[in-house]
Amino acid sequence: MAAPEIFHSDRPFALESGATLPALDIAYHTYGRLNAAGDNVVWVCHALTANSDVADWWPHTVESGCFLDPADKFIICANIIGSCYGSTGPLSVNPATGEPYYDSFPRLTMRDIVAAHRLLADALGIGRIAALVGSSVGGFQAIEWAVSEPDRFDKLILIATDAKASPWAIAIDETQRMAIRADHSYGEHRPDAARDGLAAARAIGLLSYRGPWGYNATQQDRSDIAPLADDRRAVTYQRYQGEKLCRRFNAYSYVAILDAFDTHDAGYRRGGVGPALQRITADTIVIGISSDIIFTPREMRDLAAMIPLADYHEIDSGFGHDGFLVEHDKLNSILNHFINR
Amino acid sequence: MAAPEIFHSDRPFALESGATLPALDIAYHTYGRLNAAGDNVVWVCHALTANSDVADWWPHTVESGCFLDPADKFIICANIIGSCYGSTGPLSVNPATGEPYYDSFPRLTMRDIVAAHRLLADALGIGRIAALVGSSVGGFQAIEWAVSEPDRFDKLILIATDAKASPWAIAIDETQRMAIRADHSYGEHRPDAARDGLAAARAIGLLSYRGPWGYNATQQDRSDIAPLADDRRAVTYQRYQGEKLCRRFNAYSYVAILDAFDTHDAGYRRGGVGPALQRITADTIVIGISSDIIFTPREMRDLAAMIPLADYHEIDSGFGHDGFLVEHDKLNSILNHFINR
Repeated sequence: MAAPEIFHSDRPFALESGATLPALDIAYHTYGRLNAAGDNVVWVCHALTANSDVADWWPHTVESGCFLDPADKFIICANIIGSCYGSTGPLSVNPATGEPYYDSFPRLTMRDIVAAHRLLADALGIGRIAALVGSSVGGFQAIEWAVSEPDRFDKLILIATDAKASPWAIAIDETQRMAIRADHSYGEHRPDAARDGLAAARAIGLLSYRGPWGYNATQQDRSDIAPLADDRRAVTYQRYQGEKLCRRFNAYSYVAILDAFDTHDAGYRRGGVGPALQRITADTIVIGISSDIIFTPREMRDLAAMIPLADYHEIDSGFGHDGFLVEHDKLNSILNHFINR
Repeated sequence: MAAPEIFHSDRPFALESGATLPALDIAYHTYGRLNAAGDNVVWVCHALTANSDVADWWPHTVESGCFLDPADKFIICANIIGSCYGSTGPLSVNPATGEPYYDSFPRLTMRDIVAAHRLLADALGIGRIAALVGSSVGGFQAIEWAVSEPDRFDKLILIATDAKASPWAIAIDETQRMAIRADHSYGEHRPDAARDGLAAARAIGLLSYRGPWGYNATQQDRSDIAPLADDRRAVTYQRYQGEKLCRRFNAYSYVAILDAFDTHDAGYRRGGVGPALQRITADTIVIGISSDIIFTPREMRDLAAMIPLADYHEIDSGFGHDGFLVEHDKLNSILNHFINR
């Protein structure tokens, strides 16, 4: 990951919970240049444990000939607040105590995360945005933003996402929190508290990202493996992925953003999801993945049907929800056309 | 659960790992009576955390007019070894130490579990079995037994199961073990060690049992719930189910049987799954559930195709893998015909 720019705001940032962050850092990356007309801004919202460096976490998208081509687009991505890649989060120092917040970081909502995006866009002098892009929980942000400021966006790209956190998505998140809290070092004031719990939480997430077809296609053991072998591929894969996340993330940020994503409901105090989505004026494309077990194709079709100017496309893939990261060829072939038409 | 019968064997029980259990208890239930011809035995293999009391865990099956009708069938179910409902497991006293085994209980395999079933059947004087029934990991046992003693069974009923633990199933199990080990009280010599880890493991299991359609159909919040509400239904459901398991199970038995189920491979040292399943001579029915994300309909069709005399039926249900427990009307309508023809 290349080092991000940091936008610093000294003004108190009011949260939906009633709490206030006394100041705010927002880390962001840009690629390409704003053109003279100011009509080439593409804002990308990142998913759970990603960062603002889109070119780092989304292979073969921020490249010449891809749908996020920096030759003619000015691409921006901000690290969500609550995370740990430069934006204010639980490991940031609480000015009131001089120590990191850890588990005393105030509860965030989806609308708080989007309010931070708006603050950054305004500070950068960006008004109209040519295209807003969100995959997975990045799409949660994109939908919330498009509903709350419909006039700001020309195009909206939603991949494997939803207008509201479903009971299923919330159950997956709560199960991850249960695993983190089962590690009784959660609550200790050190960045690496609850590492074993975080590793288990990541392993839970991975099950939902890859699904049955993903595991069975990529994690088969050799056919003659002994039943009591201790190096089964699916076993070592889960452990490895858990440890890998622990090297780059922390349990407090993980819980903070899971909590925030569970609050996603674009229809709250807007008469429900249907009327809220009717506000969207952007030309919209909704993309589902055939084997996604988090945001199933059926739900993606329903989402597209509720947005006024939306087309639905489905990517045939065995990689499950992770298809949005893996199937860049298929995404580029759909989105190059959409974003440039 | 009604109290089971206990079969006690004083002879050492050799395990596939090379270890030996110095003695063995096997808890079992029977319903109905063995007829004079001895041709009405139905053996039921139970799933993960169930017990030998089929009428307790499988509603509306051991009843008049249902496919396990005790009026004309002699139904037997044995608690699997490693479990905690009367059969020898990690909470049993190790004669060598005078203390429970806890995490020193020897590793079990699927073939060890089936060897215990065979020991009990022989001890009860039961030769031929009219029908062998297994759902979920009960089906793992049924397939292993039918492959290892094909001449013993007239009919074989396999519901939502597999001939070999898939990478996906193993990944789900390892993730549960990661959650249990994240609770650092795992290893302490008390029956309630790692309760929080066990609760998280159960919550993981439930995600896989119910799947997206199950949660979204039954755990919707009221539409006006505040995003920061702390009583989201999907959250309280996961916690409740975790706590509920902790009141009736223990982490050591849970890990012991997960480990054993991961060793399931009917094809090991038999030339692979295909040739192994060719050994089955029983008249077989394979039943899949349309929304099952553990044993997907595609895999169930593949399983049926590999067994010589097998028909495949699919139950249309939104309850996921748990459909095998919930959809008793559909099961009875299929199986009443099959078992009595």
